[in-house]
Amino acid sequence: MQQRVDFITLGVPDLDAARRFYVDGLGWKPTLDIPGEITFIQVGHGQLFGIWGIENLADDVGAGPFPGGPPPLAFAHNVGSDEEVVELLARAERAGATILKPGQRAAFGGFHGYFADPSGFRWEIAHNPGWSVDADGVVSLGLVEG
Amino acid sequence: MQQRVDFITLGVPDLDAARRFYVDGLGWKPTLDIPGEITFIQVGHGQLFGIWGIENLADDVGAGPFPGGPPPLAFAHNVGSDEEVVELLARAERAGATILKPGQRAAFGGFHGYFADPSGFRWEIAHNPGWSVDADGVVSLGLVEG
Repeated sequence: MQQRVDFITLGVPDLDAARRFYVDGLGWKPTLDIPGEITFIQVGHGQLFGIWGIENLADDVGAGPFPGGPPPLAFAHNVGSDEEVVELLARAERAGATILKPGQRAAFGGFHGYFADPSGFRWEIAHNPGWSVDADGVVSLGLVEG
Repeated sequence: MQQRVDFITLGVPDLDAARRFYVDGLGWKPTLDIPGEITFIQVGHGQLFGIWGIENLADDVGAGPFPGGPPPLAFAHNVGSDEEVVELLARAERAGATILKPGQRAAFGGFHGYFADPSGFRWEIAHNPGWSVDADGVVSLGLVEG
């Protein structure tokens, strides 16, 4: 199994609310958009981010329902400065997100904050001076002194 | 906010079990590996997959604990044939995964199955003839007749 994620599919309790946040609120352009059914948005080289009803996802997995509560994971989106972290958190809040952690110094030595999308999925917005991506897409991750 | 996910960080109940599955079991090569603390593995162009203790992730988010239960999302990994779906599910099971759905015809018209990793995160292994990625990394997603 190669080190590759092709789809990241969220199972959401309110499909319309999730779609409004990502498509209308953040302005992300869908690759495939069937409102009320499913929406796929490209979020990386060859990678799609899916928004699907939690019951549809549970049926597809075939392993019973998902209990409630925020899922134990976070997506992260990196930006180039502390100011952009603050701006993006405000942008997300205007689009309907809940701020969980306002922009602040991070344990990794950079600056970050978190929001929850309307379904409860958590996103970190970070300025991480130790993170870089070369021309081939390979990530380097240096630890920065806090 | 650009359409981009830079990190996908799992919050796991047993860090060693999660690391054994991805690094030892699946053979994925870490970009940064601090056993007992955190492991990052590159899973896409410029994208890292993180394995972190669920309590560390909750502390970092700063918004309280995550309740138990499988998270309402799935990662997907696409392969080129139905046979490869069956092979990869078997490989994952040997590495410590639990098969949730054996390889079978999928509603989207292809062939797929699901496993849960040792922390309960769900992965779909799929052969989707409607999915393709061009040289620039742009995904096309055609609907296939089931």
